[in-house]
Amino acid sequence: MCELLGMSANVPTDICFSLSELIKHGGECGPHRDGWGISFYEGQGCRSFHDAMPGSDSFVGQMLQTYPIKSHIVVSHIRQANRGRVCLENTHPFIRELWGRYWTFAHNGQLKGIKKQPLKFYHPVGSTDSEYAFCWLLDQLRQQFNVRPKNPKTVWTFIEKCFAELRAMGVFNALMSDSQVLYSTCSTQLCAITRKAPFGRATLIHSGIEIDFSAVTTLSDVVTVISTEKLTSEADWTCMQPGEFRVYNNGICIYEAIQ
Amino acid sequence: MCELLGMSANVPTDICFSLSELIKHGGECGPHRDGWGISFYEGQGCRSFHDAMPGSDSFVGQMLQTYPIKSHIVVSHIRQANRGRVCLENTHPFIRELWGRYWTFAHNGQLKGIKKQPLKFYHPVGSTDSEYAFCWLLDQLRQQFNVRPKNPKTVWTFIEKCFAELRAMGVFNALMSDSQVLYSTCSTQLCAITRKAPFGRATLIHSGIEIDFSAVTTLSDVVTVISTEKLTSEADWTCMQPGEFRVYNNGICIYEAIQ
Repeated sequence: MCELLGMSANVPTDICFSLSELIKHGGECGPHRDGWGISFYEGQGCRSFHDAMPGSDSFVGQMLQTYPIKSHIVVSHIRQANRGRVCLENTHPFIRELWGRYWTFAHNGQLKGIKKQPLKFYHPVGSTDSEYAFCWLLDQLRQQFNVRPKNPKTVWTFIEKCFAELRAMGVFNALMSDSQVLYSTCSTQLCAITRKAPFGRATLIHSGIEIDFSAVTTLSDVVTVISTEKLTSEADWTCMQPGEFRVYNNGICIYEAIQ
Repeated sequence: MCELLGMSANVPTDICFSLSELIKHGGECGPHRDGWGISFYEGQGCRSFHDAMPGSDSFVGQMLQTYPIKSHIVVSHIRQANRGRVCLENTHPFIRELWGRYWTFAHNGQLKGIKKQPLKFYHPVGSTDSEYAFCWLLDQLRQQFNVRPKNPKTVWTFIEKCFAELRAMGVFNALMSDSQVLYSTCSTQLCAITRKAPFGRATLIHSGIEIDFSAVTTLSDVVTVISTEKLTSEADWTCMQPGEFRVYNNGICIYEAIQ
């Protein structure tokens, strides 16, 4: 199974700590040997790194663990190929522009019949059902709203509806961002933790590495991490429910629905 | 002035040698302190790195000089901001998907009145006239050809016409790729060199570093490098003429026109 990792924060925050655990799952501890990728938003800009090599062998991965790119939204994915061969163009997150913003998307699961859906504006470069689903989703948004709606909630509820359609096609755990908010949905497995003051200590489950968040944060910081599995031993992790949809902004869940 | 660097090769080739010279122009020897970016194609996939920091200070830049990503097409750019503030989203190359392929674009120059042209499908994320011009160009392609034309020359001649329109708006030296070919046009300054057997030695103009290409190539390799300035002391560099348009595939110029 592929693994997802996302972050939403109210201050530019580095994700090295969580990323080091995720990358260990890519080959060293886990079966996810088919590449990985990560997208960092910095304002409207988006910086993405993709590697068709396993996460734990990846030079880019090593670089990212020691080079703390600070970001307010992160979308990351470690891949275990089940649809589409192992190559750069099949590596998540996928990126497209809509309404003058960069959208990124990462997915865990399989979708039956997605490739029978017609596409109009967006077309996949690779052969995964995930990229196809992303193109279909952006097509729906573009066909429904030629320009970005003024009320953000209009977009959230429309995406909620599209995500529900995708969940009905199989397994659809997913993270997506448009540089403003982080969208997440759980079909079978997705966990989340929100860290804020008073900050405590945390220990990574696989590597045993410990961090004292109080030493690297300020009192006003709010950071949510979303991932397939709990990454640390903290008690505050919660499992999202099947059918759940959440929108995060500045580390806080600002919209939630369950179907 | 911004600087461009492109490569087309018939085998996956690393561009470390040329890149090390280009990055020196970013801050250390040159005035291009406003960020840089590079896109590498690997098959249909595209790997891009952007940095709003000067090239010579950039950790990503140092990483790329020592980590030889091999690619058949490269598009790179060092920026000296003249339109649009210094930030990630204003850093070339810009990337969009058209007809199921990733298109990348880098531009040197200014275009008067480009932002008055209407846009339909593609919209800029940043504020540069370069990204606007790229969106306009892809709009023209998409409006002219809903699907990719079977005859590639149909696309080349259409792009030639669009590039001529852009050159008429100001200064437009540009590199663009769709993962299959490398498009280049010269409005005021662009040089090219094609290296093939028998391979010789070359010395970088600014750093004095020497390379023996015969030691790192095979007899069948063909590699073209295109850049704003000549990067080495080799006699084979040629200057493109104002109004010239070239399409490269596998290191060879396969289409050429001058207006």
